Amino acid sequence: MSGERTMTGPRLDLENGRIEMIHGNGGRASAKLVEEILLPAFDNEWLHPLGDQARFDLPGGRFAMTTDSYVISPLFFPGGDIGSLAVHGTVNDLAMGGAQPLYLTTGFILEEGFPLSDLVRIVRSMAMAAKNCGAALVAGDTKVVERGKGDGIYINTAGIGQIPDGLTLDPSGISPGDVLLISGTIGDHGAAVLAAREGFRLASTLRSDSAPLHSLVQTMMNSGPGLVCLRDPTRGGVASTLNEWARTSGLPIEIREEGIPVREEVRGVSELLGIDPLYLANEGKLLAVCRPEAADRILSAMKTHPLGYEAARIGMVGKDSSRIPVGGVLMKTLMGGTRMVDWLLGDPLPRIC
Amino acid sequence: MSGERTMTGPRLDLENGRIEMIHGNGGRASAKLVEEILLPAFDNEWLHPLGDQARFDLPGGRFAMTTDSYVISPLFFPGGDIGSLAVHGTVNDLAMGGAQPLYLTTGFILEEGFPLSDLVRIVRSMAMAAKNCGAALVAGDTKVVERGKGDGIYINTAGIGQIPDGLTLDPSGISPGDVLLISGTIGDHGAAVLAAREGFRLASTLRSDSAPLHSLVQTMMNSGPGLVCLRDPTRGGVASTLNEWARTSGLPIEIREEGIPVREEVRGVSELLGIDPLYLANEGKLLAVCRPEAADRILSAMKTHPLGYEAARIGMVGKDSSRIPVGGVLMKTLMGGTRMVDWLLGDPLPRIC
Repeated sequence: MSGERTMTGPRLDLENGRIEMIHGNGGRASAKLVEEILLPAFDNEWLHPLGDQARFDLPGGRFAMTTDSYVISPLFFPGGDIGSLAVHGTVNDLAMGGAQPLYLTTGFILEEGFPLSDLVRIVRSMAMAAKNCGAALVAGDTKVVERGKGDGIYINTAGIGQIPDGLTLDPSGISPGDVLLISGTIGDHGAAVLAAREGFRLASTLRSDSAPLHSLVQTMMNSGPGLVCLRDPTRGGVASTLNEWARTSGLPIEIREEGIPVREEVRGVSELLGIDPLYLANEGKLLAVCRPEAADRILSAMKTHPLGYEAARIGMVGKDSSRIPVGGVLMKTLMGGTRMVDWLLGDPLPRIC
Repeated sequence: MSGERTMTGPRLDLENGRIEMIHGNGGRASAKLVEEILLPAFDNEWLHPLGDQARFDLPGGRFAMTTDSYVISPLFFPGGDIGSLAVHGTVNDLAMGGAQPLYLTTGFILEEGFPLSDLVRIVRSMAMAAKNCGAALVAGDTKVVERGKGDGIYINTAGIGQIPDGLTLDPSGISPGDVLLISGTIGDHGAAVLAAREGFRLASTLRSDSAPLHSLVQTMMNSGPGLVCLRDPTRGGVASTLNEWARTSGLPIEIREEGIPVREEVRGVSELLGIDPLYLANEGKLLAVCRPEAADRILSAMKTHPLGYEAARIGMVGKDSSRIPVGGVLMKTLMGGTRMVDWLLGDPLPRIC
């Protein structure tokens, strides 16, 4: 469950409140749902780190386990579909904990009337994606709901992976001076899906970046020590991941807008929709925190990988200072000014994954 | 993915066909969906046994992994709710492979407008159920869909459990002469949910049997050897499990109606709805195949457990003979006659789990 430990703002109304679309946007409202309802019920030592994967010991070593449901609309989009996305998303959540994906499960919720030809296309895409990740899809389940009680198909995937001996990737290790890296351009998935949904013409060159990141992570780890933690900035985008890290570490994070790679087409769609690319979902990118002395080496290693050739240094972790509020994210803009990068507040971008 | 290896009847129309409610009933239509769409795409050595859980080796031993989505309507019913059901169901799928549940994940799909108070009630019920099973809920995910694209809440759970060294519970071991045991009365869950849905008055004494079966399985295994395989007869009921075993083993299965425990109220609701209790879902019962010489001992052990005190011997595995078609299930009725117990064909009972 992604979220954070302490939230500000008014508490949820647990007596009369209702689920709103904004609870699904990956920003502050989603985090409140996790903090005020799910965590108090499920609180345990594994869930507490609030990463995208749980980590635990089994007799033979250390393992990571994760789950995600996929409710994306449309089901097919440039660069992928709900099937490949459901595999990549879970593989990536494992990879962000340093785990090599091993076994996946999947659960389908099918709406009455859903075309079998679409189901065939989706499960073939899933199978191909799993094969490309070296992960086996070992168990599954299928449920059917009445017309009007679903939206074609919803897919859940869960996965387990093994973490190499001695490896600890954890945001609790973030320290002042650490360097922030991004593996490539941001916002491609969110922009492609929104454009496909709105039917934008200019969108013809936009493609989701949906891809499995485990081998890029392997390449980074093989380059040597100094990696502190990883996260794939999906729902809520780069801004949400940075805010979670800033809050977890209690340190300010400073980024430079000019260092952040954004495709022209993504910038165009973002301007049309009035959305900052920092809040757009990514499905084949990772953010990394690494020690300053390791940053150049890890960045060079990333650039040798097909999924990291546009990797860039985007900022650093600051010292506790009065210039930036503790736990805040500050961006030096292209115009030379500085502004706070807040959590995604309103403006839900739902059904993006 | 529950189902079977070879199905008869016309093939699905993969070009123009659509999902129908019957594909969710746990009977022949569900099995066809698995066989003609999912298996061809995902075929691998772990999925092939088609049990309710996948089994694989990790460095430290043998493990089972499983998943299920829950779309039950109504969400709250006598004897349980979608939350406890989602935990028990996955714990039971692990237990049927002889695995002790360790870690669970959960994914929520919430519909816009769903009351937060219901969500609180459900997650508390899940947490309590997981605690009672000794399993930790270690990772989760929350998605929100628009009003009219869901039905309040759908829950997926996945789980991993460890299988004791040397234990193999597998329907491929079924042999002529083996004995069939049931752990208690059948149809309680299906009858309770259907009655709650229809608003039957007489239903006031009906309760779902939703319960975790891992400790009953432990009790059975502790009694000594001779256990061949286990299955919890959920969607599709006892009839579907027996048909799957008959087909897997290529042997006839003979049961006696008078040996099968059914509550009076369940019989009443079944008659009102025109449904045979053999096809009603169970969520806290197991069917066991055991060696003839071990049957009495295992049955006695079951009766010492709170979830097995009404356990009964209901039949046996026959020899390949001309009297019963290979892979068929024959029942000696209360009236003294015999009849075939077929797969659930039409009459979908959807949204039962």
